Amino acid sequence: MAAVALGGGHGLHATLSALRMLADAGVVDEITAVVTVADDGGSSGRLRRELGLLPPGDLRMALAALAGEQLATGPSDTTAPTRPADDQPWTRLLQHRFGGSGALAGHAVGNLLLAGLMEVLGDPVAALDEVAALVGARGRVLPMSCEPLDIEAEVTGLEDDDPRRAHRIRGQVAVASTPGRVRRVRLLPERPQACAEAVEAVRSADLLLLGPGSWFTSVLPHLLVPELRDALVAARGRRVIVLNLAPEPGETAGFSPEQHLAVLAEHAPELRVDAVLADTGAVPVPDRLHRSAAVLLAPGGRVHLAPVAAADPITPRHDPRALADALAAVVAGPDRRRTTTAAASAGAGGRRGT
Amino acid sequence: MAAVALGGGHGLHATLSALRMLADAGVVDEITAVVTVADDGGSSGRLRRELGLLPPGDLRMALAALAGEQLATGPSDTTAPTRPADDQPWTRLLQHRFGGSGALAGHAVGNLLLAGLMEVLGDPVAALDEVAALVGARGRVLPMSCEPLDIEAEVTGLEDDDPRRAHRIRGQVAVASTPGRVRRVRLLPERPQACAEAVEAVRSADLLLLGPGSWFTSVLPHLLVPELRDALVAARGRRVIVLNLAPEPGETAGFSPEQHLAVLAEHAPELRVDAVLADTGAVPVPDRLHRSAAVLLAPGGRVHLAPVAAADPITPRHDPRALADALAAVVAGPDRRRTTTAAASAGAGGRRGT
Repeated sequence: MAAVALGGGHGLHATLSALRMLADAGVVDEITAVVTVADDGGSSGRLRRELGLLPPGDLRMALAALAGEQLATGPSDTTAPTRPADDQPWTRLLQHRFGGSGALAGHAVGNLLLAGLMEVLGDPVAALDEVAALVGARGRVLPMSCEPLDIEAEVTGLEDDDPRRAHRIRGQVAVASTPGRVRRVRLLPERPQACAEAVEAVRSADLLLLGPGSWFTSVLPHLLVPELRDALVAARGRRVIVLNLAPEPGETAGFSPEQHLAVLAEHAPELRVDAVLADTGAVPVPDRLHRSAAVLLAPGGRVHLAPVAAADPITPRHDPRALADALAAVVAGPDRRRTTTAAASAGAGGRRGT
Repeated sequence: MAAVALGGGHGLHATLSALRMLADAGVVDEITAVVTVADDGGSSGRLRRELGLLPPGDLRMALAALAGEQLATGPSDTTAPTRPADDQPWTRLLQHRFGGSGALAGHAVGNLLLAGLMEVLGDPVAALDEVAALVGARGRVLPMSCEPLDIEAEVTGLEDDDPRRAHRIRGQVAVASTPGRVRRVRLLPERPQACAEAVEAVRSADLLLLGPGSWFTSVLPHLLVPELRDALVAARGRRVIVLNLAPEPGETAGFSPEQHLAVLAEHAPELRVDAVLADTGAVPVPDRLHRSAAVLLAPGGRVHLAPVAAADPITPRHDPRALADALAAVVAGPDRRRTTTAAASAGAGGRRGT
């Protein structure tokens, strides 16, 4: 089964870790990450401003999540003993940050490595494939677009006098840290070209995961790249929305699970999904989520509640093992429509809806 | 035959390129570079000041000189077609420099990679071995010492009033660019500890090359590391000094080939060598070089003159093929003392002079 996870940051790290476990268990045999490229903060922001490249941070984190347990030191080393991924020098290097207070302080070495390879090869996808091979990644990491993008949000509630007045806030960091309520987001440039390999991965996937993650800046952006949204809408694979465990201060402060679904539907009204997966403890009123999900669900689609949160974390995060189990249950669940459609589609030699 | 090349910068690149050709020809089967670590200029200087690590530039150049023709992307890729070293993404990355005018401008990505790995692994030798494996290097690159060093030179002729008055000039860049005449150099800290692996490589080598390169800042420093000098003096292998093609402005302006040998002898009076190799065109009066070399040569040792300069370069540089041929001739030349000593040493189960 080919699986595609769309997102960015820690949320994507969680779904990729879960997919990796499903690969270990033989349920998934191909993993592709499709990653947002609108970050403008930290090491990534400095690199994109200085070099005009894709912000590498989210791409790097996805590679680290997929990093393998094999030494990747050339054909001559096939006899070397395998080491766990965390002990692998290249995986550790990928995530290592320079310290101090100089020009390099805070830069992740993996970001510099990706930036250098993008310049050398002139192709972000080729650069990502090289680093994936270096760390023995268990899948492929792709950018949602090969051009660096910016996020612009419409935010209300910034002023006391007129809480309905909308302001435009530009940049991922600004959007994630400005108080007020994000109404909608758009990409700059608008309607960017999708990464062709990412579109193809979405088209041919059996399982597609959207979320969890920073909802407006890591999850919804994929739906604003026209070819990627079209491919998601028309995909033959099973589409699953993985909801966040908690609202995020700045971006989705005070948002209920239902509101997460509502803004997603507003940004991609034509998208239907086959499952909405949420943590049992994060859904105060399950009935409300079922009603809210109804407009998004394709025929035969379902809401899945499962305990997928890690126990006692400092900040809420998904437990990869629990998430893997829940995803396996979603995949194994009865879904006659998909089965029927897939068979019909295969019989007709074409894809549904394209 | 195990060969060790000691030096730094472009000179070391030349000897390593030549040794690589001898490896291709089956004459040499093991190459080790022992590299100076006193650079304080450019990307290397910025890195050592910012992070307190070994300056990586000369180490990186040595790795690039030895970079192989195999893709080094993990055991799964053994079926990938081989590409010439210059087409290898990782070798190209090693030498790629960031442009622009920002915080990263001018940094070679390979320097950042080495710096990051030295921090992650806490061991420069392990870091160098990892990068060597990454680029499929045809040999090993070692620092002469695992601590960053500084060069301090005694320079005369800086003042018009008293040309004999000596000044202390500190730092490789300063030494290489200050007018006047360098009298001698020392290392700071004095008597640094040698890299153990480098000492062992010198001890077990069959062929040892010292030079060419910036004489005071890349060649002589090896003789100022006590354990390394002792190992060179006592080495059982054949020691060859490869002379520069021309004096270097700043460092050895106006120096004749004989003066190069004289300052080397002053810095390591107990060192005897088995050959002095010089370019035919760079030695105006061969008799003078023979006389000057006599004090340095071990019994049976010889001066070899051969055309080893590249044709029509903008700056003088050795032609790797010509240098390889000349070294092969030096190695093949009659040298009864060495042969006898090696046999006696093997028979006694020990090393001469240790």
